[in-house]
Amino acid sequence: MQSLLKPLLGMVLAAGIAGTAQAQSPSPFAKPEDAIKYRQSALFVMGQHFGRIGAVVKGEQSYNKDEVAKNAAIAEQMSSLHWEAFAAGTDKGNTRAKPEIWSNPAKFKSAAEAMEREMSKLAAVAKGGELNAIKAQFGETGKACKACHDDFRKKE
Amino acid sequence: MQSLLKPLLGMVLAAGIAGTAQAQSPSPFAKPEDAIKYRQSALFVMGQHFGRIGAVVKGEQSYNKDEVAKNAAIAEQMSSLHWEAFAAGTDKGNTRAKPEIWSNPAKFKSAAEAMEREMSKLAAVAKGGELNAIKAQFGETGKACKACHDDFRKKE
Repeated sequence: MQSLLKPLLGMVLAAGIAGTAQAQSPSPFAKPEDAIKYRQSALFVMGQHFGRIGAVVKGEQSYNKDEVAKNAAIAEQMSSLHWEAFAAGTDKGNTRAKPEIWSNPAKFKSAAEAMEREMSKLAAVAKGGELNAIKAQFGETGKACKACHDDFRKKE
Repeated sequence: MQSLLKPLLGMVLAAGIAGTAQAQSPSPFAKPEDAIKYRQSALFVMGQHFGRIGAVVKGEQSYNKDEVAKNAAIAEQMSSLHWEAFAAGTDKGNTRAKPEIWSNPAKFKSAAEAMEREMSKLAAVAKGGELNAIKAQFGETGKACKACHDDFRKKE
């Protein structure tokens, strides 16, 4: 029995972030489609608010400190929501998630945390109100988004 | 010219909430589909977190004060996001929004604000940690959700 349990435990651990969360509590999603829709929704809302800051950074919109700070705060809040939705069994269906999310969870976790960290830095800088600092941090945050997409999201 | 401008101005005002917001600043959405997807995303995320509280209220999940408070806080944050996405010109396409949103903006605004208000009350009560109070306020908030859906969302 021991010899059977050990590889099984290894598989459970290899399921990564989502697996770890699930070991503690049952999935909060009624069905896999809900988890997929949830993470897409959270990331879409995040992307919209991040994009509004982008329009200011690119000079398409005039700079308004409060607006940028609000958009960055919402993007930061959204950036932490979706990880639990990358649960085991949510790799099929209406999703561009690559299998590497589940086969290389440590790398995914690292990329995911980098994005969250850079988004938090953007929120802090946006509160400060220095446009040049916002521009620089917007670039860093964008790189973290792209790095995760390059490795873990299928092209359309 | 005056005689032409006046009815035009009336039409702009009649466009309601969204029209008012648009008169102050251009729509933050690149295209109508983005606005539709944004409000659906925000409401879906809100609904998921509200639903998790529902599972506790119904006794399907055990009560954990921090979890319920966190879910209620996220639902509250999400509840204020989507109004700007009910902009003029976003009544067509992949949406169940009824024309009444735009033809009766005062009623829609009132229903929308009632939902936000009840969701904020739920967040406050959830922080307090009295399960019976949470159950009661969950019911009130659910009524506000339903009232808006009944009047302003097409059946599937």
